[in-house]
Amino acid sequence: MTVDILLQREPIVLKTDVPPEAGAVVRFEGRVRADEQGRTIRALVYEAYQPMAERQIEKILRELGAKHPCLSVRVRHRLGEVPVGDAAIVIETLASHRSEAFALTAAFMDRLKQDVPIWKMKALDA
Amino acid sequence: MTVDILLQREPIVLKTDVPPEAGAVVRFEGRVRADEQGRTIRALVYEAYQPMAERQIEKILRELGAKHPCLSVRVRHRLGEVPVGDAAIVIETLASHRSEAFALTAAFMDRLKQDVPIWKMKALDA
Repeated sequence: MTVDILLQREPIVLKTDVPPEAGAVVRFEGRVRADEQGRTIRALVYEAYQPMAERQIEKILRELGAKHPCLSVRVRHRLGEVPVGDAAIVIETLASHRSEAFALTAAFMDRLKQDVPIWKMKALDA
Repeated sequence: MTVDILLQREPIVLKTDVPPEAGAVVRFEGRVRADEQGRTIRALVYEAYQPMAERQIEKILRELGAKHPCLSVRVRHRLGEVPVGDAAIVIETLASHRSEAFALTAAFMDRLKQDVPIWKMKALDA
């Protein structure tokens, strides 16, 4: 399984390029919402302990890939100020069949929130 | 939950347009693979009993939406000859939070295969 991880300050652009052995593409985008725990915001600010975050994301993907074999996974996470409506994270998983791709992608998002040192540093009011 | 369904003979192009209340976008693409049960193929040919298929898709989405509340779901399914590498189906689900979007999308794909009169009529050899 190929793994491609990037933490970036620029807007996330992730073009799908699908090899002929991939029957399933699952893509998840987590976007910044205007409503943050009852406050109307214009942006969230994300920060990370970057080298550890990237290592941890790779470790989680390797673990999940052993359980749910997929062809490739790409993860992009944005850092710094992310305006409402923009994606803070995009993950795209390619697999021969859909069940593994759904399982890996959903499980990764749960693990990301628990185990990776990336955090919402603050919310900026609208 | 808004529902938008189209069975079409043209390649599927589904541009994401995300409202600010959507925190989660889950997109699944099911693509035609070169390997069809051990044969190398160049295309699959899909046919449908179209009016019933569209009604059935809507019914399934309404049922799943009651269980996993989402903001919107769009489904595109291709009919006729679909070359290897092209998407036969695309579903894109928008929700406030990711768990409902993952659950609805994955469950829909299981139900589609079981309960909707769309079938692979034949495979064309490479």
